[in-house]
Amino acid sequence: MALIVQKYGGTSVGNVDRIKNVAAKIKSFWDRGDKVVVVVSARSGVTNELIARAKSICPNPSEREMDMMLATGEQETIALTAMALHAIGVPAVSRTGAQAGIITDTSHSRAQIAKLTGGDILDRLDEGKVVIVAGFQGLSSENEITTLGRGGSDLTAIALAAAIKADICQIYTDVDGVYTADPRIVLPARKLERICYEEMLELASSGSKVMQSRSVEFAQKYGVTFEVRSSFNNQPGTIVKSFEKTMEDAVVSGVALDRTQTRVTVGDLPDTPQAISAIFDALGEASVNVDMIVKNLAKGVANLTFSVATDQVQRAEKVIGGVLKRLGTGTFRSSGEIAKVSIVGVGMTSHPGVAGTFFRALSDADINSELITTSEIKISVAVAPERADEAVRVIHTAFGLDVPVKI
Amino acid sequence: MALIVQKYGGTSVGNVDRIKNVAAKIKSFWDRGDKVVVVVSARSGVTNELIARAKSICPNPSEREMDMMLATGEQETIALTAMALHAIGVPAVSRTGAQAGIITDTSHSRAQIAKLTGGDILDRLDEGKVVIVAGFQGLSSENEITTLGRGGSDLTAIALAAAIKADICQIYTDVDGVYTADPRIVLPARKLERICYEEMLELASSGSKVMQSRSVEFAQKYGVTFEVRSSFNNQPGTIVKSFEKTMEDAVVSGVALDRTQTRVTVGDLPDTPQAISAIFDALGEASVNVDMIVKNLAKGVANLTFSVATDQVQRAEKVIGGVLKRLGTGTFRSSGEIAKVSIVGVGMTSHPGVAGTFFRALSDADINSELITTSEIKISVAVAPERADEAVRVIHTAFGLDVPVKI
Repeated sequence: MALIVQKYGGTSVGNVDRIKNVAAKIKSFWDRGDKVVVVVSARSGVTNELIARAKSICPNPSEREMDMMLATGEQETIALTAMALHAIGVPAVSRTGAQAGIITDTSHSRAQIAKLTGGDILDRLDEGKVVIVAGFQGLSSENEITTLGRGGSDLTAIALAAAIKADICQIYTDVDGVYTADPRIVLPARKLERICYEEMLELASSGSKVMQSRSVEFAQKYGVTFEVRSSFNNQPGTIVKSFEKTMEDAVVSGVALDRTQTRVTVGDLPDTPQAISAIFDALGEASVNVDMIVKNLAKGVANLTFSVATDQVQRAEKVIGGVLKRLGTGTFRSSGEIAKVSIVGVGMTSHPGVAGTFFRALSDADINSELITTSEIKISVAVAPERADEAVRVIHTAFGLDVPVKI
Repeated sequence: MALIVQKYGGTSVGNVDRIKNVAAKIKSFWDRGDKVVVVVSARSGVTNELIARAKSICPNPSEREMDMMLATGEQETIALTAMALHAIGVPAVSRTGAQAGIITDTSHSRAQIAKLTGGDILDRLDEGKVVIVAGFQGLSSENEITTLGRGGSDLTAIALAAAIKADICQIYTDVDGVYTADPRIVLPARKLERICYEEMLELASSGSKVMQSRSVEFAQKYGVTFEVRSSFNNQPGTIVKSFEKTMEDAVVSGVALDRTQTRVTVGDLPDTPQAISAIFDALGEASVNVDMIVKNLAKGVANLTFSVATDQVQRAEKVIGGVLKRLGTGTFRSSGEIAKVSIVGVGMTSHPGVAGTFFRALSDADINSELITTSEIKISVAVAPERADEAVRVIHTAFGLDVPVKI
């Protein structure tokens, strides 16, 4: 008997039959005596439909009214999920974000959770009920309905698990768990049994789109153990928690690929700390995330090369143009999309030879690496997009991550 | 400059274009300096769609979860209406029933309003904003989302108008106002400029389906002046308030028709008060509404004939069967549908000749009247359904209600 928070995304509750499947899954835990809190998203498609309707009325709708409208999506799903449980004899009751005591700041469309009381959830669990909570939404300190932005339902689940001290938070999704690499690229990729927060974070920020970083960070901060697993089968998924690696754990946990970066080069800068910091300060103020920075010196002038998210390139160019004008010197150009290939593994730096294996694999395949960055638990290189899949495969093989082929 | 509450029903906000039309209408009042509170229903069709989805998950869904789900319909419309106002430059903000301080009892699906604070509506009006409130919904004393049942959005509007002491409550609907008779039956029916609460109530309970009685009763109780008018044109509608009739007002305000009644006859009862009251007590307990009661005595036994709503006949038969079994005597049968034709007019009984005119019109047309009931402001007869339209027309003409034909 455990206290469990389960989260089902929009695809898992996408239609009436899937909601019934989710109810059956919830019942299997309730039957064995677990106390279950369930967080659900809006049915897939509903949110986009609502947004389209709003935009046909007002091209640039107010975020406050969008939140008012979007919150209805989850409110419908919680009621339907409770009904589906009633239909199979499981007592259940639904709760909006406000009723579950999810108090946020006043930033509409991307609110931060400020406080989470859980409302009367524990009392209802004690009565033997399953409690269904609307994900993605909260109530601001000004009594306004807010939404939490991308990945909001995961965050609701993780935060609820922290608030009620759940034994585990299960994130049900359309993938089986966290893999050593994207199985669509690397056929012999392996599902990881477990992974620590740091690695999960690096994978999330390196293109493994299983979960948003903010939910993982929240789980890490409050020590919430969570499991990423499939809503379409009963296989165990990947457990994410903090743990010490043993001798048997692989040094490298996974290989990630991020195809959403573009390389920007700023040349002919004076080699002064002021010039360099003017560039990055301005980009930071404009909320442009910069990655993989390399500085070269040639003939007394500095050249900066770095990567930014492709959808932020225009903004970056505008910002840099302004800075160079003020400096009265410098040139810049964005020189095409790049693919970032990363290996992730806690303890990597204390194992000799990791970097060697990494670059040897690329070299053996004759794949050129253009930008290189390293951290305690990650090594990333930028490669040409057309060589990226191959780079992931050869690195995956080089670190012994491939599932042994059964003969 | 007036303080106005406007209510738009599901048809008036049925799609994006209609919501834009409603916004334009609201703007015309706001432009001239009125303070406007708007109550909207769910888009037409949405509620039925939600109910169908719920029933496909659970044949007999819990009323609490139905309310949770149905309340999303109006929540979407308030946001869309606010956005439509923003798009044409009118500051507006939406409020759920809970945010507007509509506190109800705990009867899900048919909650009664217990208290209405209005929340911060007056403050927002003072800022120059239009406030859009979700109709049909409230928050119970136990912090649960409730719905008010049939006619709930009208009730929200009337109750809000009472709470904020509005000058008038405008009920926008798909008819132009209250007519002297149904214009589909009586071609020369006239739109009434004004009508008092009592007459409006009698018309409502006699088949004029413009508004539910409960909203009219609420308006009468709190002295809320309201106007029934069309959302599809700019014509004035019918004002409903309390007033003294002058010499120029017609004695009879309208002719109503109710085709939803069935005649039930209970025969061979002992002619004792106990036997009669046993029948009506039992029907009352089973919430069967009885109308037009006639008692005959023949050969020392009593025969009761009365009308009940056709959709309550089965329940009535079951109840009466039980009573007769206990009494050990009596027979009963439901003997076919009847049509109830009524004239309504305050002060009717102080005008001689009203009943005479009424029955002479029927007699001249050779229409037999089977059951007859009268009150201070109404005379009703049951006629054969196939003669009902004709009966309405001849009575309408007899009381001089026809619009003069223009030559």
